[in-house]
Amino acid sequence: MKHHILSAVATTATILSMCLCGNPASAQEALGYRTMGNSPVTGDDGSATFGVYAPNAGRVSVTGQIPGSPVEMSRDANGWWSVKIDSLKPELYSYWFDIDGVRTLDPANAYVVRDIASLASMFIMPGNRQTDLYSAHEVPHGNVAKVWYHSPTLAKDRRMTVYTPAGYDADESTRYPVLYLLHGMGGDENAWSELGRAVQILDNTIAAGMAEPMIVVMPNGNAGEAAAPGETAEGLYTPDGQRSLSPEGLFESSFPEIVAYVDSHYRTKADKANRAIAGLSMGGGHSWRISMQYPDMFDYVGLFSAAVMWNGGGVDGQNANPYDQALTRQFATAPQLYWIAIGKDDFLYALNASYRETLDRLGISYTYVETDGGHEWRNWRSYLVRFLPQLFKKE
Amino acid sequence: MKHHILSAVATTATILSMCLCGNPASAQEALGYRTMGNSPVTGDDGSATFGVYAPNAGRVSVTGQIPGSPVEMSRDANGWWSVKIDSLKPELYSYWFDIDGVRTLDPANAYVVRDIASLASMFIMPGNRQTDLYSAHEVPHGNVAKVWYHSPTLAKDRRMTVYTPAGYDADESTRYPVLYLLHGMGGDENAWSELGRAVQILDNTIAAGMAEPMIVVMPNGNAGEAAAPGETAEGLYTPDGQRSLSPEGLFESSFPEIVAYVDSHYRTKADKANRAIAGLSMGGGHSWRISMQYPDMFDYVGLFSAAVMWNGGGVDGQNANPYDQALTRQFATAPQLYWIAIGKDDFLYALNASYRETLDRLGISYTYVETDGGHEWRNWRSYLVRFLPQLFKKE
Repeated sequence: MKHHILSAVATTATILSMCLCGNPASAQEALGYRTMGNSPVTGDDGSATFGVYAPNAGRVSVTGQIPGSPVEMSRDANGWWSVKIDSLKPELYSYWFDIDGVRTLDPANAYVVRDIASLASMFIMPGNRQTDLYSAHEVPHGNVAKVWYHSPTLAKDRRMTVYTPAGYDADESTRYPVLYLLHGMGGDENAWSELGRAVQILDNTIAAGMAEPMIVVMPNGNAGEAAAPGETAEGLYTPDGQRSLSPEGLFESSFPEIVAYVDSHYRTKADKANRAIAGLSMGGGHSWRISMQYPDMFDYVGLFSAAVMWNGGGVDGQNANPYDQALTRQFATAPQLYWIAIGKDDFLYALNASYRETLDRLGISYTYVETDGGHEWRNWRSYLVRFLPQLFKKE
Repeated sequence: MKHHILSAVATTATILSMCLCGNPASAQEALGYRTMGNSPVTGDDGSATFGVYAPNAGRVSVTGQIPGSPVEMSRDANGWWSVKIDSLKPELYSYWFDIDGVRTLDPANAYVVRDIASLASMFIMPGNRQTDLYSAHEVPHGNVAKVWYHSPTLAKDRRMTVYTPAGYDADESTRYPVLYLLHGMGGDENAWSELGRAVQILDNTIAAGMAEPMIVVMPNGNAGEAAAPGETAEGLYTPDGQRSLSPEGLFESSFPEIVAYVDSHYRTKADKANRAIAGLSMGGGHSWRISMQYPDMFDYVGLFSAAVMWNGGGVDGQNANPYDQALTRQFATAPQLYWIAIGKDDFLYALNASYRETLDRLGISYTYVETDGGHEWRNWRSYLVRFLPQLFKKE
């Protein structure tokens, strides 16, 4: 009983390590510790050095959201392939290795993101205020729940992600405004909290006083599914993004059910002045339609690379002003903020330009932000960071 | 405006697919659809056929929790490597490919599990009642939240996973018993809900009437960390499992803070008769110590492959009965259930045998279950399924 503490710890660690390391066959499940170096290694100069041990490979490159991708890697005498990429802009990057034609996640990187059926390794290059918001910091954290609600319209139990801000559980008298944040085609209720880094962005912007403490509801916008792939009785199928389509406007029509659920289960400020809706791509289209369909519901609307003027009738931009009446009705009691953002290279740019012409013709005020880049998460994370500080400023 | 609905949907799908599929460089993030076949393909006969396109590889095998692993794969004329493995027992399997010495996740499988720093692809071979409980079904689902609480003892905000059963949000008068479910070394607050399939197991066993509706709290048992890797200000570091150690019993001493948080923030039945604690490996050690340290707290104790008689003083099994006094005190008001389970091949088997001798010598009653297998998740999932129906039967 008189073990010296340090040696006792070493003994304990050794005993358990024998199981975890010494004999892979008896390890817990997917094995233990890596001995093959780190990848990627980021430098203060914005460099990232990628490496992978592939002694028998003939050609290895790093591929993905990397400038100049694919970037060829070089082999050293021991079979370690590497490349240093300089001057990466601060950003969240997803990438993978192409090893003789096989798409391979970085075996040295434990962090992955999924987009539809594809996995990629990810890392964050720090270095500016914006990217800093994508990383976790020592600030009060909000809670994140996967919540099931029943949708009579869609005739199923469905899942959504709900962020409640730090302090929500501490003071049971405070009520909060709500942002409804919608994903794009191929996404699901996990997209904003995973690829979008919404939880970190919310924790950080709220802690910094840049945004009001708010509840953020991230529902599943695919009318044809109940929840993210793997979370339903459909099993571990290969996602194909096709369930995303909501051609009959059913998701939009079901939206008041979500708002009613949230208002009855969370301490919300349940009025227009304290509700925002925003989404990317298809979710921008949803936000556009829902805010138009329910003009008394949202005082803040964010259209991020939005599929506006797109619905079950196809793209209606060229038709005879089919939205004039609905938009006029919506803007009779105009929202406090109607915020449109899109990248110059976005494939929906022209559609958004056409939509802005419609708004201009109707004399409707809106805020327009045009950025570099295309139809991509680096823009949508950035738009969320720009959008949040503008919310719930009416009172 | 007179589009035919079907052709309009096709048009919409085509437009959006142009972005997602036609031009990978403009896809959302990690690219779109797979065209390289499915893997694994499971048959009703218990077979699983694994495949990967690796036209330039010299040797490919499937490795992991697969019988006979590594299993060599064969190349066809087009560069598609495959192997059919027959007669797999119903189970959740994790696996990966070894392609010329590089550990590669299955590029056709979107589902991964993480254990410490290692990722593996996963699939479920259905076919018996137990494995069926690991899959999602059309039953009422409980909600799962990542919840931050403050620990004065550990001097940090810390994260836990909280499962609330289906119906918890619907009827605000019902109070529930609570199971505290603890992970092992190298795990974290995500382990039971990911590798352990605890959410599916709970949904299914509760829906089937096999288990009482209960709240299940899965805290982070690593005194040295606040939350799972990647969720804290420590950033996206490479996990090494070493933060797991809790040599000074600090996690155990902080446990009443978790219970107090749960009892004050959830509709619990806040007494011994309605509290259970169970854990695997290190978490079994925690459950063992905590139930001994706080004898009035838990009426149901589950020790799964538990690191019993292990603490900051090292393994105490050979010492002069250091736990006699504490055990005698605990069993003066004995728990309703004291359940010990371990596999014949577990490296902690001898320690558990020694512990049972201690209990026998003290005249303490317990339930002992000995299974095949070793220190592995397939046992721990199975133990959870066996443990749950025995809980909260006193009233």
